[in-house]
Amino acid sequence: MPTGKLDDYIMFSSGGQGGQVLVIGLPSMRLLKVIGVFTPEPWQGYGYGSLETQAVLEGGFAKGKPIYWGDTHHPALSETNGEYDGQFLFINDKANARLAVIDLRDFETKQIVKNPNAINDHGGGFVTPNTEYVIEGPQYATPIGWEYAPVDQYKEKYRGVITFWAFDREKGRVDVARSFQIELPPYWQDLCDAGKKVSEGWIFCNSINTELATGGIELGLPPFEAGTAQRDMDYLHIINWKKAEELVKAGKAETINGIQVLRLETVAQEGVLFFAPEPKSPHGADVAPGGDYIVVGGKLDPHVTVYSFQKIQDAIAKGPTEKDEYGVPILNFDDVKEAQVELGLGPLHTQFDDQGYAYTSLFLDSAVARWSLGGPYRQDGWKLEGKLPVHYNIGHLAAAEGDTVSPDGKYLVALNKWSIDRFALVGPLHPQNLQLIDISQPGDKMQILYDMPIGIAEPHYAQIIKADKLQPWEVYPEVGWDPLKQAVDPNAPQAGQERIERRGNTVEIWMTAVRSHYKPERVEVKKGDHVIWHITNVDRARDATHGFALPGYNISLTIEPGETTTIEFDADQAGVFTYYCTEFCSALHLEMMGYFTVQP
Amino acid sequence: MPTGKLDDYIMFSSGGQGGQVLVIGLPSMRLLKVIGVFTPEPWQGYGYGSLETQAVLEGGFAKGKPIYWGDTHHPALSETNGEYDGQFLFINDKANARLAVIDLRDFETKQIVKNPNAINDHGGGFVTPNTEYVIEGPQYATPIGWEYAPVDQYKEKYRGVITFWAFDREKGRVDVARSFQIELPPYWQDLCDAGKKVSEGWIFCNSINTELATGGIELGLPPFEAGTAQRDMDYLHIINWKKAEELVKAGKAETINGIQVLRLETVAQEGVLFFAPEPKSPHGADVAPGGDYIVVGGKLDPHVTVYSFQKIQDAIAKGPTEKDEYGVPILNFDDVKEAQVELGLGPLHTQFDDQGYAYTSLFLDSAVARWSLGGPYRQDGWKLEGKLPVHYNIGHLAAAEGDTVSPDGKYLVALNKWSIDRFALVGPLHPQNLQLIDISQPGDKMQILYDMPIGIAEPHYAQIIKADKLQPWEVYPEVGWDPLKQAVDPNAPQAGQERIERRGNTVEIWMTAVRSHYKPERVEVKKGDHVIWHITNVDRARDATHGFALPGYNISLTIEPGETTTIEFDADQAGVFTYYCTEFCSALHLEMMGYFTVQP
Ligand SMILES: [Cu+2]
Ligand SMILES: [Cu+2]
Repeated sequence: MPTGKLDDYIMFSSGGQGGQVLVIGLPSMRLLKVIGVFTPEPWQGYGYGSLETQAVLEGGFAKGKPIYWGDTHHPALSETNGEYDGQFLFINDKANARLAVIDLRDFETKQIVKNPNAINDHGGGFVTPNTEYVIEGPQYATPIGWEYAPVDQYKEKYRGVITFWAFDREKGRVDVARSFQIELPPYWQDLCDAGKKVSEGWIFCNSINTELATGGIELGLPPFEAGTAQRDMDYLHIINWKKAEELVKAGKAETINGIQVLRLETVAQEGVLFFAPEPKSPHGADVAPGGDYIVVGGKLDPHVTVYSFQKIQDAIAKGPTEKDEYGVPILNFDDVKEAQVELGLGPLHTQFDDQGYAYTSLFLDSAVARWSLGGPYRQDGWKLEGKLPVHYNIGHLAAAEGDTVSPDGKYLVALNKWSIDRFALVGPLHPQNLQLIDISQPGDKMQILYDMPIGIAEPHYAQIIKADKLQPWEVYPEVGWDPLKQAVDPNAPQAGQERIERRGNTVEIWMTAVRSHYKPERVEVKKGDHVIWHITNVDRARDATHGFALPGYNISLTIEPGETTTIEFDADQAGVFTYYCTEFCSALHLEMMGYFTVQP
Repeated sequence: MPTGKLDDYIMFSSGGQGGQVLVIGLPSMRLLKVIGVFTPEPWQGYGYGSLETQAVLEGGFAKGKPIYWGDTHHPALSETNGEYDGQFLFINDKANARLAVIDLRDFETKQIVKNPNAINDHGGGFVTPNTEYVIEGPQYATPIGWEYAPVDQYKEKYRGVITFWAFDREKGRVDVARSFQIELPPYWQDLCDAGKKVSEGWIFCNSINTELATGGIELGLPPFEAGTAQRDMDYLHIINWKKAEELVKAGKAETINGIQVLRLETVAQEGVLFFAPEPKSPHGADVAPGGDYIVVGGKLDPHVTVYSFQKIQDAIAKGPTEKDEYGVPILNFDDVKEAQVELGLGPLHTQFDDQGYAYTSLFLDSAVARWSLGGPYRQDGWKLEGKLPVHYNIGHLAAAEGDTVSPDGKYLVALNKWSIDRFALVGPLHPQNLQLIDISQPGDKMQILYDMPIGIAEPHYAQIIKADKLQPWEVYPEVGWDPLKQAVDPNAPQAGQERIERRGNTVEIWMTAVRSHYKPERVEVKKGDHVIWHITNVDRARDATHGFALPGYNISLTIEPGETTTIEFDADQAGVFTYYCTEFCSALHLEMMGYFTVQP
């Protein structure tokens, strides 16, 4: 990538157990930004004093308990007609069952919602083709709603719960009141994908513990890794979300902890939920660009299994004769299976391109398998085309525009979990390795272009969008902008209106920042005073960000051109504190400071 | 950089107001690791439950108040005989006046010390040539020891304070008892560098507010940016630290807040502190590889000024006739000046190579100036050789082995503060831009090789070490390793010894983690129990790290092969919590989980 040239694609990658989103340019594989999502980030003023960002983080607290990290798994770009539209990004927190909304005008997190009925999640976020809903799928079954039940009541009391977070595009927020959940059996639902085109209105999730294993190696019982791998088949979950939406509107849902829940009995009986057998301990249910096929990779089976949506519909119409022990109708495997393609060891996740090829990660083989789709996609369908070794232990993979109805081809990124010897040793904790792969040539001609170490958490999944679909702001539209409301704050400090006001023991400050000074430069209060401090960056030049550090008070702000922000704290410590600009904004940036003096 | 090839150099860069250290490979300019230092990092298990890492962070609390971020400025590699030895890295926190120690065997932070007498700092860390001391220089003057004094008592009550943290290489820790501070006038001391070879035993710091400006734009007074720029000359601080050490040992220091302090009067009278005039609002005092010259860049003066250490010694021997208003002897400018070289607008910081060239960042010109040293370095000395435009607004720069007595040449990195249009737009908050420059050709032939966006805070300064000088561990030496003690923990869980013990309402767990299960997989306690939970990763393969997430309790651990760690908390919430491995350690990593059940 020559100096000064801009990237063609932008990849939004999960930041794994760092709790953030990584923004990476393609093909340069350069890390352009880390977006603070579930974890406070002092350098971007996220969760270090700013009231606006603290409000976002507190939206994700669990029953009032602070949670300041997340395990981000599956970023999902908002879609219009099944195409990424570049407006919003959603991402889940597996560890604490939460979902975050990022506005792609300023690349900042605007909302975190806590799932009130789940302890953890996994298969989310995934969006419906017009972003009506952002789907948060479950992982490890627990009693619904943080209740206690002993593990030996697993079968009766533990459940999966999948959430359909209704998204209000106008407000840029999840609307909890219109959202709903579906109770599922305590199989470990894993990854989901939304139907599109012919299958719009449906979603599909794989699952991995239909054995109902509950571990207990310390008691001489099989550990989870063995207990969950006993059956040859698990269940692909097939969910009619439009039908579910109708049932919710018809009042068939029960409100549990503030959200509407369709009970398992209801969805099993009313044609919302169906199962199809799937081999074996799979990880990934991926819908082909036309919505006509669903691909499942069974990590303990060398094949991918392809289901036909039409055959699923036919089997449902015919009427399934079998049910699982929770009363959910099971479709016959041979009725719904379109093809099985043998790829190698440990197939996990599948992506698509514009040539009718599919790409499946092979964890145990440390390889990417390219294979051809049949049906309308390619004449020579359902066969392995070639394998490319990657380094090492690939989890997910991401293709350019790969989850849309019209993937781009060109580039594929392998998200490898181990790097071992690929990079200079930096201690026992190794970076991950994201490898850029050229997939523009046909057949078995795939080529690794670049190894990108990720020395910051373990990216789980990523989506790649054409750069020109994004329309970010260079600076905030107007001076005094509140990025949470995405509107001018009428109370924002403006140039010439700076002041300090005292009301009783509350001191309120309206301050501006401009290259290269704050106004005011001296703020004096008394110990015990309550301080409310507004700051506006009145600079309008691109990249003219100012920082604000207040020593001893754990406060760090980053204020972009036009932005206004507010901090609030008790001056509980007497002394002389030096606030200063943490961004090297000008030749005299070291001189951009002031004295906050607290009288004893 | 071809796939699989390892880097020749490792750059340790400040992570700016992110509070971390960035580890970057050269020449690939790939981010290999972010080391958690002042800010908790959930993905590396730093400050998210682990008792060992919490103890490190608490060492940096300010008078008991939690501080969970820092503004890292100047990383300093440990040195032996003036060469980087690859053992330790030090970095300061400008915002809160702290210093951190990182052990380069495992690239983890082992200690944070809070400066008890300063609110903020800047010119640190810098090491003496055998790492006897890590120097933490001041920035904005305040009353010593967090005391209150109004701004209008600035001249009388406000002071600078420079700290010499004694380093115990054996223990890998700063030894506060042997450390000392020196009181300085309330000029804003800025950047420091240690003398080496002929000047070993001395240090040099520039300063920027000998005007004693106190701001007050809101009162109609000159803002700091104007008030601090009134004089044509500031003072280069020349400090004889070996003499200071003798005075401390001779009992001439006063203990203030637990640390020995040499008072200004003492150091002014006893030949510890001297001033030399320096033009104008400089940023940087950099000692040439031989220790013979000190280079100061005056950001409001187009020249760099070069001081001769021999001339400084001669002037001191002759006896300075002038003093500043605090009684500090001032050397005559013409007596100590060796040369002035006109470079351009906004010279800040200077680095050196193996050809006798110096490189100075020009902030306002957005350029790197290469110029020749005279004296023993080059025949054609003290002249500008060429300038290379960089993009944009360069602050510091770093050359390969650039702060040692024998720099390598080859590579220079420009740490540019603004990127503006260099990268795809990612919202109003822009990345920084680190540019790799080839300096292997002579004269004006410098060439930009690569633009590296830094989408994570603002790197301030960096040091670059030969990769083969580092000897990091691939895995911890033995199973049950405590990374804080760097020794086996006799209480660490070992395979076959896993157990759960109850003592009253305390439940203690000894757990192991191995691909792909924890043992035990079920932990049951009662609400209100106090839980002590030890976990050892008994895997021995390189890169076989396990994670440990506990939902709802804000706990995230990363446990490298052999490592043991401990968490401790009150089970204050009943329910079923699913702990699981956050690192994709094997094909069945999703199954690596357990149930933590809390009876109501
Ligand atoms: Cu996954
Ligand atoms: Cu600096």
